[in-house]
Amino acid sequence: MKAVVYKGPYKLAVENVSRSKIQHPNDAIVKITTTAICGSDLHMYEGRTAAQPGIVFGHENLGVIEEIGPGVSSLKVGDRVVMPFNIGCGHCRNCVEGHTGFCMNVNPGFAGGAYGYVAMGPYMGGQAEYLRVPYADFNALKLPDGNSFEKDFVLLSDIFPTGWQGVMQSGFKPGDTVAVFGAGPVGLMAVYSAKLCGASKIYSVDRVKARLDKAKSIGAIPVNFDEGDPAKQIIDHTDGEGVDRGVDAVGYQATSNGKEVPNTVLMSLVKAVRPTGGIGIPGLYVPSDPGASDDEAKLGMLRFPIGKLFEKGITMSGGQCNVKRYNRYLRDLIISGVAKPSFVVSHEIKIEDAPEAYQKFDKRIDGYTKVLIHPQM
Amino acid sequence: MKAVVYKGPYKLAVENVSRSKIQHPNDAIVKITTTAICGSDLHMYEGRTAAQPGIVFGHENLGVIEEIGPGVSSLKVGDRVVMPFNIGCGHCRNCVEGHTGFCMNVNPGFAGGAYGYVAMGPYMGGQAEYLRVPYADFNALKLPDGNSFEKDFVLLSDIFPTGWQGVMQSGFKPGDTVAVFGAGPVGLMAVYSAKLCGASKIYSVDRVKARLDKAKSIGAIPVNFDEGDPAKQIIDHTDGEGVDRGVDAVGYQATSNGKEVPNTVLMSLVKAVRPTGGIGIPGLYVPSDPGASDDEAKLGMLRFPIGKLFEKGITMSGGQCNVKRYNRYLRDLIISGVAKPSFVVSHEIKIEDAPEAYQKFDKRIDGYTKVLIHPQM
Amino acid sequence: MKAVVYKGPYKLAVENVSRSKIQHPNDAIVKITTTAICGSDLHMYEGRTAAQPGIVFGHENLGVIEEIGPGVSSLKVGDRVVMPFNIGCGHCRNCVEGHTGFCMNVNPGFAGGAYGYVAMGPYMGGQAEYLRVPYADFNALKLPDGNSFEKDFVLLSDIFPTGWQGVMQSGFKPGDTVAVFGAGPVGLMAVYSAKLCGASKIYSVDRVKARLDKAKSIGAIPVNFDEGDPAKQIIDHTDGEGVDRGVDAVGYQATSNGKEVPNTVLMSLVKAVRPTGGIGIPGLYVPSDPGASDDEAKLGMLRFPIGKLFEKGITMSGGQCNVKRYNRYLRDLIISGVAKPSFVVSHEIKIEDAPEAYQKFDKRIDGYTKVLIHPQM
Amino acid sequence: MKAVVYKGPYKLAVENVSRSKIQHPNDAIVKITTTAICGSDLHMYEGRTAAQPGIVFGHENLGVIEEIGPGVSSLKVGDRVVMPFNIGCGHCRNCVEGHTGFCMNVNPGFAGGAYGYVAMGPYMGGQAEYLRVPYADFNALKLPDGNSFEKDFVLLSDIFPTGWQGVMQSGFKPGDTVAVFGAGPVGLMAVYSAKLCGASKIYSVDRVKARLDKAKSIGAIPVNFDEGDPAKQIIDHTDGEGVDRGVDAVGYQATSNGKEVPNTVLMSLVKAVRPTGGIGIPGLYVPSDPGASDDEAKLGMLRFPIGKLFEKGITMSGGQCNVKRYNRYLRDLIISGVAKPSFVVSHEIKIEDAPEAYQKFDKRIDGYTKVLIHPQM
Repeated sequence: MKAVVYKGPYKLAVENVSRSKIQHPNDAIVKITTTAICGSDLHMYEGRTAAQPGIVFGHENLGVIEEIGPGVSSLKVGDRVVMPFNIGCGHCRNCVEGHTGFCMNVNPGFAGGAYGYVAMGPYMGGQAEYLRVPYADFNALKLPDGNSFEKDFVLLSDIFPTGWQGVMQSGFKPGDTVAVFGAGPVGLMAVYSAKLCGASKIYSVDRVKARLDKAKSIGAIPVNFDEGDPAKQIIDHTDGEGVDRGVDAVGYQATSNGKEVPNTVLMSLVKAVRPTGGIGIPGLYVPSDPGASDDEAKLGMLRFPIGKLFEKGITMSGGQCNVKRYNRYLRDLIISGVAKPSFVVSHEIKIEDAPEAYQKFDKRIDGYTKVLIHPQM
Repeated sequence: MKAVVYKGPYKLAVENVSRSKIQHPNDAIVKITTTAICGSDLHMYEGRTAAQPGIVFGHENLGVIEEIGPGVSSLKVGDRVVMPFNIGCGHCRNCVEGHTGFCMNVNPGFAGGAYGYVAMGPYMGGQAEYLRVPYADFNALKLPDGNSFEKDFVLLSDIFPTGWQGVMQSGFKPGDTVAVFGAGPVGLMAVYSAKLCGASKIYSVDRVKARLDKAKSIGAIPVNFDEGDPAKQIIDHTDGEGVDRGVDAVGYQATSNGKEVPNTVLMSLVKAVRPTGGIGIPGLYVPSDPGASDDEAKLGMLRFPIGKLFEKGITMSGGQCNVKRYNRYLRDLIISGVAKPSFVVSHEIKIEDAPEAYQKFDKRIDGYTKVLIHPQM
Repeated sequence: MKAVVYKGPYKLAVENVSRSKIQHPNDAIVKITTTAICGSDLHMYEGRTAAQPGIVFGHENLGVIEEIGPGVSSLKVGDRVVMPFNIGCGHCRNCVEGHTGFCMNVNPGFAGGAYGYVAMGPYMGGQAEYLRVPYADFNALKLPDGNSFEKDFVLLSDIFPTGWQGVMQSGFKPGDTVAVFGAGPVGLMAVYSAKLCGASKIYSVDRVKARLDKAKSIGAIPVNFDEGDPAKQIIDHTDGEGVDRGVDAVGYQATSNGKEVPNTVLMSLVKAVRPTGGIGIPGLYVPSDPGASDDEAKLGMLRFPIGKLFEKGITMSGGQCNVKRYNRYLRDLIISGVAKPSFVVSHEIKIEDAPEAYQKFDKRIDGYTKVLIHPQM
Repeated sequence: MKAVVYKGPYKLAVENVSRSKIQHPNDAIVKITTTAICGSDLHMYEGRTAAQPGIVFGHENLGVIEEIGPGVSSLKVGDRVVMPFNIGCGHCRNCVEGHTGFCMNVNPGFAGGAYGYVAMGPYMGGQAEYLRVPYADFNALKLPDGNSFEKDFVLLSDIFPTGWQGVMQSGFKPGDTVAVFGAGPVGLMAVYSAKLCGASKIYSVDRVKARLDKAKSIGAIPVNFDEGDPAKQIIDHTDGEGVDRGVDAVGYQATSNGKEVPNTVLMSLVKAVRPTGGIGIPGLYVPSDPGASDDEAKLGMLRFPIGKLFEKGITMSGGQCNVKRYNRYLRDLIISGVAKPSFVVSHEIKIEDAPEAYQKFDKRIDGYTKVLIHPQM
């Protein structure tokens, strides 16, 4: 089968690899109809991780069941399904309690597994014609037959729930005000989620006009951090009070004045969020960043305003999204017409065009922001 | 009236000051029968704050209503009451939502006010014969008449709820395992609270044998951090898994190998807490610490393992205790005989002996750990 | 001052009564600019309660502060404010914990007080030129100066938060499906609230076409219970599964086939809600209903499908709305333009026209559904 | 293998039946070392259900894995395990959200399945030498090897978590007061759970002195309902306020003055619980009770004080226990020595003695309250 294979920094190839097959009674094989390129794929692509050549990328996957193992009981061949990017066993303590991003079984020695990602277990990615889905009853979410909402549903695998969880982790309640830092795909999904859940005001912080325009078009108040301290802008706009909730949809590769300042978003959030408020962190922070500028940042240690956080009584919560906790509900919002997250999709391509799409997406050129690959096309 | 007055670093005097009086219709004057010295009083005593000479100390106060303003409707002269250390107006957004440690009205320009504390508003402390209590209906908790449980009830003003909230902020559920760093009065109260609420295992981390013995006597497993990395000890003792919940009852004056290392407890907690767990922080972190060893620590900025926190999906919550949210329930646990927190009390003294007690408590000599002052004695 | 005075069943008069004045240091006098007639006023109007002649009606009140007592600290003359229909002291256990509809102090012997309502305490209603507001700091919510959103803001006193709480009490989470029984003002507010908070599907059950049309216009799926068992219609429409959440916005005066069947809505909800779901009850049930058809119903005892409720593991929660828990957030949703609940308002009148409006509203003629009175007009 | 087989009302036999075997890749076969007789087994035993002869009883099961299917991944032969009485698939919406008592897959057409119980699916019970456990990874909880705590651990299958959930469903918080109606095994477990979780006062209501003595010995205040209205006794004892939380551990076979009055406990609870409180219902109510005294009770419809419930703003929650949500934590409380629920066990027998034990337990003679069967003895 054809698959997008990592060959080394900035090098990808579409190659023929041996077709995914059932390895365990609870496996299913899914024929991928749509799979997306994620911003986090770029970390590997750029060679900033320990990823070794040979990895098949792709953790945002949607398709049709081609084959099931004899242990699978709730799915049948022909079912259309979308998979969370994280893989869970469904019966460890974390999975059972809804922390499906922190499965204790699928990736021994680590809490959490995923498709096609370095250090997330031996699972091939879905930027390929077929995908093996372990514990398929648990990891595959059924979709209506056909190809309706294909572009929306594929976003259930990662970015829509990831943005949504960022809002929830901030302690959000309807009527709250929210500031979302970062207006990339996850940030936009966070803005959109806050909107869907009844935020009274949403600030979207970025420096790219096109992104801010997009955020504004879905109901956010744009804040351009090139035009001044974003926390101050937000505080001024809220009559000095600050926002109830903050969402960091940027992570450790945050920039300020054109250079990487990994703690800049966290600094701003602790400043912009009002006393007793909360911060949700869907943006990635890593415990090992060899490319960081100082020795402690290399270990994921950043200067953090803990004194201010304490003084203001702010709660902070982060981590990989537990996709499965939300995807069913977000699917239903899509089906009922309430949510239509595909507005973030910029390109749809054949699998052969994946290497070029990575290149352009990595350079943020030609409007590449969210690319969908259709491997059967 | 007699009062404990701050005269400058390491200098206190018991002096006659003008007696507290009603200043507002909602005030009450309380004749103090018991007031306690708090570890946080030492920050001022040692001159490590901006406290100016003249402050009357004392934020852990219990007594009998001597006089009420015409607006007070639920209290009468003669009622025995205990006051949360924080003062709330009862009608701002934070007070109304239970964040009574972050009142927006009683200390203009800051979220939160308290008795007898620098920067916490113009409120005289209760290490004196009388205390003015603003918004008395809101800030005074009624106790049974007489002098039963006096030593227990006075702890409702601060350390019992503070330890309790530390456990709650960690996301604690009955059956969870908990590690409490620090076995001073607040740490012991956190251990005791976890015990009362059904923890399955409680680790108490300190280096002072007497403290660890006390913790053990109320059900904790002692961990001496002089005998090796406390996080490692805890992880080993939990078969490699770590604890569900962590409580930092130390704060920014944490030490390691005999010197102040302000982030050492937070580092240990992020290591010792299992993925998807939570951390509660009753220990004080300040946004301004002129005595700190480096420029960023002076601003309350510490190196923090945000990468690891994110990877493990840990939630963190800190801040001053919202005493009023808990004191009613803890009072009832005392009355019914379920809780008896006074085991932490080491000394009871007359107000005239306060300066000596501060001195000994500051030096941690002669067993001074929790001192009660009886100003009417 | 002019006021709407109850003279006996179906008899109201606009009379001059002595003007409201400060009685306690924490009182404020509000000059009423808008006050609404509530469906629950009709219970008194129709003589189905123990209300005695002389009561001034009106618990949905908005106006401008005319005078404040010396204990009031956060309000000033000229502030525009809206009051929850329930009166709270702000410092009893229930008020402090957010159960402001169940104040233990303002109406001795009963948990809860209100303006202008039988058995809810000695508080004159606001269908008058002026209103005395006890514990004004706690009971008055500040609004922007001027007269913007007047028609929306007055709904913050009762029906908007009442519908909203009905949804919250059902255990609602974004993405859930909801069935709201009753499409009167409260039912419409429940539908609207569910919509604002991200429901995936909302069923609105009624028999009046105009109401169902209104519900449909704000996003609901109309279910006419004259066209068949509403629970069955809902179950069929959800592929046999039922809804996640149910809201009873009808109460004990429910009808079926043209006659009063007080338990019919509860029966339908237990049937229509899926196993593990929840039911919120903003609709009024009373423990004493002299006009009921059987002896037990007179005592508020109804046949209830407890066996089915248990089998399905459904949670049920009801009671008067704790308006203060929500009004600040709903106000902000109105100010930011997210919510515009005034679509339910049918008429605006001078106080002199109140008796006629009651008469028409009671008969549900001429489109009278939600009437606003402007006493200063 | 030997098994306890239902032969008809009041008739049981220990017979040889064909040995349980693997039927699906996710099955395990457990060699039962301890299984308990439950009060709910008596419903079938007495012929008050639709149970047909041939059913093997037993839903409280503990043993050692004898054999596993090829899909089972977290268990191995020789593991000691205890099973929740309810069977879940682990991947339906209800299981995934923690409502494991309401699985949508294991018992088609009904939400929930169990071992050895009429209408709960085709699953043989564990009062036998061996038991087939479907979805074994999900349904078997690992225990330490050996036979430590055998009498405590077997109670993890049902009554300990059932009593515990009753307390949780009431909305319990530490410091609350609780009234538990019924001091049979489940009621005692509810009292014990409230104690473990920090209740300030616990009332245990029953009429049997031995039961009340037992409740008192674990910290409850006994209330004998033969000595007067139990709600009134509780209200008087709480200075007129009532309790925060109520637990109904009796269910529909409640009695008053010696005859069955199915709604008597619910009536008492709505009276005894204070405004804004909560009620948890672990006691069984059924939607079909052919033996009931009136036509509506036969359908599980009881007169219920909905008017009073509404007036007091009480929340109510019931249903089968989601054992899996709690059993891990309760196991850890047993292992750490905090909990020792086996104090309720009255008898331990060989399987051959089961028919006699049922007879005596049904008659409540010779102290039979909680009987453990050891099929391998």
